[in-house]
Amino acid sequence: MGASGGALPFWGPDQELEFHLFEVNDLGGMLSVGAAPGHDRESVTAVIGVARKLCEDVFAPLAPKMDAEEPRMLEGGEAWLPEGVAEALGAFRDAGFFAAPFPEQAGGLDLPYLAHSAASALFQGANGGLMGYPFLTIAAANMQLALGTEDQQRRYMAPMIEGRFFGTMCLSEPQAGSSLADIRTKAEPLGDGTYRITGSKMWISGGEQPLSENIIHHVLAKIPGSPPGVKGISMFITPKFRVGEDGALGARNDVRLAGVNHKMGNRGTINTLLSFGDEGACVGELLGEENKGLAGMFLMMNEARIGVGLGAAALAYSGYAASLAYARERLQGRPIDGRDPTSPMIPIIEHPDVRRMLLRQKAYAEGALGLCLLCAGLVDAQRLSKDDADEAQRLHLLLEILTPIAKAWSSETGLAANAEAIQVLGGYGYTRDYPVERLYRDNRLNPIHEGANGIQALDLLGRKAVMADGAALMALHREIQETLSEAEGSTACAPFVKPLSDALGRVGAALSALGPRMAAGEAGAALSNATPFLELASRTVFGWVWLRQGLAAERAAAQGRVSAAYAKGKLQACRYWMAWELPQTAYLTEHLIAGERSWAEMDEAWF
Amino acid sequence: MGASGGALPFWGPDQELEFHLFEVNDLGGMLSVGAAPGHDRESVTAVIGVARKLCEDVFAPLAPKMDAEEPRMLEGGEAWLPEGVAEALGAFRDAGFFAAPFPEQAGGLDLPYLAHSAASALFQGANGGLMGYPFLTIAAANMQLALGTEDQQRRYMAPMIEGRFFGTMCLSEPQAGSSLADIRTKAEPLGDGTYRITGSKMWISGGEQPLSENIIHHVLAKIPGSPPGVKGISMFITPKFRVGEDGALGARNDVRLAGVNHKMGNRGTINTLLSFGDEGACVGELLGEENKGLAGMFLMMNEARIGVGLGAAALAYSGYAASLAYARERLQGRPIDGRDPTSPMIPIIEHPDVRRMLLRQKAYAEGALGLCLLCAGLVDAQRLSKDDADEAQRLHLLLEILTPIAKAWSSETGLAANAEAIQVLGGYGYTRDYPVERLYRDNRLNPIHEGANGIQALDLLGRKAVMADGAALMALHREIQETLSEAEGSTACAPFVKPLSDALGRVGAALSALGPRMAAGEAGAALSNATPFLELASRTVFGWVWLRQGLAAERAAAQGRVSAAYAKGKLQACRYWMAWELPQTAYLTEHLIAGERSWAEMDEAWF
Repeated sequence: MGASGGALPFWGPDQELEFHLFEVNDLGGMLSVGAAPGHDRESVTAVIGVARKLCEDVFAPLAPKMDAEEPRMLEGGEAWLPEGVAEALGAFRDAGFFAAPFPEQAGGLDLPYLAHSAASALFQGANGGLMGYPFLTIAAANMQLALGTEDQQRRYMAPMIEGRFFGTMCLSEPQAGSSLADIRTKAEPLGDGTYRITGSKMWISGGEQPLSENIIHHVLAKIPGSPPGVKGISMFITPKFRVGEDGALGARNDVRLAGVNHKMGNRGTINTLLSFGDEGACVGELLGEENKGLAGMFLMMNEARIGVGLGAAALAYSGYAASLAYARERLQGRPIDGRDPTSPMIPIIEHPDVRRMLLRQKAYAEGALGLCLLCAGLVDAQRLSKDDADEAQRLHLLLEILTPIAKAWSSETGLAANAEAIQVLGGYGYTRDYPVERLYRDNRLNPIHEGANGIQALDLLGRKAVMADGAALMALHREIQETLSEAEGSTACAPFVKPLSDALGRVGAALSALGPRMAAGEAGAALSNATPFLELASRTVFGWVWLRQGLAAERAAAQGRVSAAYAKGKLQACRYWMAWELPQTAYLTEHLIAGERSWAEMDEAWF
Repeated sequence: MGASGGALPFWGPDQELEFHLFEVNDLGGMLSVGAAPGHDRESVTAVIGVARKLCEDVFAPLAPKMDAEEPRMLEGGEAWLPEGVAEALGAFRDAGFFAAPFPEQAGGLDLPYLAHSAASALFQGANGGLMGYPFLTIAAANMQLALGTEDQQRRYMAPMIEGRFFGTMCLSEPQAGSSLADIRTKAEPLGDGTYRITGSKMWISGGEQPLSENIIHHVLAKIPGSPPGVKGISMFITPKFRVGEDGALGARNDVRLAGVNHKMGNRGTINTLLSFGDEGACVGELLGEENKGLAGMFLMMNEARIGVGLGAAALAYSGYAASLAYARERLQGRPIDGRDPTSPMIPIIEHPDVRRMLLRQKAYAEGALGLCLLCAGLVDAQRLSKDDADEAQRLHLLLEILTPIAKAWSSETGLAANAEAIQVLGGYGYTRDYPVERLYRDNRLNPIHEGANGIQALDLLGRKAVMADGAALMALHREIQETLSEAEGSTACAPFVKPLSDALGRVGAALSALGPRMAAGEAGAALSNATPFLELASRTVFGWVWLRQGLAAERAAAQGRVSAAYAKGKLQACRYWMAWELPQTAYLTEHLIAGERSWAEMDEAWF
């Protein structure tokens, strides 16, 4: 037991991210057709290298401390965070990571979104709590880039891209967690184009902190007289300090820290309860159109959802790397077929059941990483296709249907991977002397926030699968079919065609049964099985993601760009997925078609 | 958010435990034929009532404090525990719960083991960390009852039954966690029948504490010249304070606290590193025969394993109860088929996906509770059958084969249930203002300790399933067949016959394929899939446990002993298990028969 407090043996072979960027997602091809002016493979690789160094030197070492020394509220309503956090974010800013993913004309560095996401995965895996601040700030600035006026972009967005102001998203309220239709925060026009904001917001990450010059809250609220429910929600830029025409900070706005949540994990990101307008003096500016606040916020939310999936994948990867390192070094026991007690002990990685736990983690972590980076690549591809409306729409639909899966299934498998990492370490894994218990606590948040996974399931089946007459699912189906066709000609991957093709057929069969029921006004009955449908679709999509990796690995190894051992590992994880994670699609589909109703018919009084 | 620090809305309908005792496991019948002299249904019910009261008044309120104020090592090597722990255990002792399960001639109260286990489940669910001390002490005293000399029983066992001394089990060492063949602790004969003990022991729960007059360690060690490996292990009673002929405490023995582990959960039970004989003055007494220490320790270990399963079930039940109470009260959203935003919000229990999470928890918690209490009932039945060697052997074999399943699958499902409890509460569930995150942290220990679940899988497939020419599995098969025959004549349960019968057939088919391979010297290959076999057998056994509950509920409702609603809930959970938790047995069996080797063939260099 060291006094390290669970510092991380930092993750992953260097080649893992490069593999996803350049072998699986063809970032090289995108760069060659102008996806990111001023960038080439070398510059992207250099950025990843800088991120890795910052993770090793700053992010990872700070993670145990940020877990042990929880944020708190001081007398007077200020927030306390441990020493070193501001400096770490300063180093992140100085290295250009706030500005990286933005276009040059907005003050950014034009890094492809895919490369930005790969760097983010490193930061998330090293210290997810610390990365929470830039993660939200970048997503908020992106939303302002889409919705803000020139004036708003100059006063609020630009300082976020510079990393001087941080951003938040303020949706939930104490009485309305997942149910945004019921928010009560009020925005009354003051006659000068601004609004008086009054209300309470809950679960606000980074809602108060001593780290940035200003905090820009993006607040969902209702203008008096607006329609009931989600159709009457608008969004307001509500800064902690007012910002003058010249960008200078003005008076303190009437936003107050009302409480700090004490969480099981992810403690590095302060999570707050905020009061707006207790003294009637909280001023906000409309962002986007009146009553279109929810649609606007979804620009940020969709980015955040993929980011949550990516964070879950990164934590899973960190746990995989930590338990792999442990399993290579820890000596215990002997081979089952040669139990001579006088023979030397073997590293536990030689025990088949330990290899099972490691392979499962690899399949989950790299599968989730693969899916979330695929989504990031779609963002770049969309930008490249902006002059081809059909293609842009197709990519948009793909991203829409993959987002709930990337968020929900990455967080489910990511958490399961972290549980296995603990199990590999045994009792040691349960102590705070090793990082894996912290990763597990941190990752337990991801199935909850940015839309609980049950909400993702409703989004997938109730909206995405049926949107545009099923065009999103159709686009996904075609993509998977293309990968399957390619695999038919592959030596190593041909055996994976049938299991994945069967699973894909099942998704179609399930939706053929559910679609008409939803259209026929039986949405409630059909959607009661939204979670099994999410599981069916997710297992299938992860199978596709793994087949893509298998094919890319086979190709790259044949051409000498990755080692044979690396490719073998990818192919073995692919085999694992097809054998152990796809067969469940069969009974799920049967139940979805039959409309199994165990819980739908469970009366409240029977519990 | 209250200042409660996560106090528990205390669990369960009163009828749940009575149902398991008197409807499912026929404790009434056992009592009527003399299972527990001096006890009848009324007295047993009264004992459960006392336990519940003690849980409500003392155990449950202390749990958040014991989590927040972690045990630590003081200068001088003493251990610190928070205020209130000693008093709580005093109340437990005064109510007779240390003595309860022991025979009258040993100073006990002759409570049936099944009733003792039901009370233990209450204590475990209310405060698992606190219950750790009596749990180990009772198991240690039970082992001494089987193995100790009259003198040892008088000096060591009797004070444990009185709750004045506490017991520990000392197996693991820093270099040997799961691999007991490699322990190095030495026991040298001193010529007077005692031994000098030297060595380090790790992961010792209750290894040092300021709670009891004395601590009786049960230490595995090797006598010089004994055979290598597990065949050379003996067990030694090694007290903290020596105990004179008259039972009076003597000098401090040379056992020292060397460190305290800082755990993710289960913090109420101090977990220690102990040094024996640093000054050459640690004296122990042989318990049982030389070189038979491991077999002896397994008396305690088997009880502990079922106890771990029961504790996991109890924590799962506590989370289920807490999330059920929350779901009934928390208003949010509207029915999917009637989303008028001006209509009132509904309790979240009305959302199908929340009912799914609750029903899953119910199926896991009450399934695990059912299996572990069934095991406890077998202990009573064995005692009743002591004059019928064949029946006693049959019951012994049943208990042997069910033990790894009760330990491993209860801890897997128990933890999964606690994860769902958090999900029902959403963000609130992730905070320390509610008890569910603590239950989840506590329960993460159970798949690890008393033999990690991978070890349980090896035990099940490598030993239990093939022991006595497969007689244990055969005995289990017959038991399940009997329940299936009964179900064929039931209105409510007949639909469950086919799915369970199919699953049972699969267990047989898998073993028919694996058994010959193990016999043919391919044990390593066969056992590399021990965990999938454990999953196959566990899903099937839980199906059986649920069918037993379904039949008992149907019968008891027909005869007016439980409410119709209660029985409907049991039948619905039974239906859920058959529909959603049994189908996985199909692909597991296919892979076991085919000898799928994804991880077996995963080279270390490919990770």
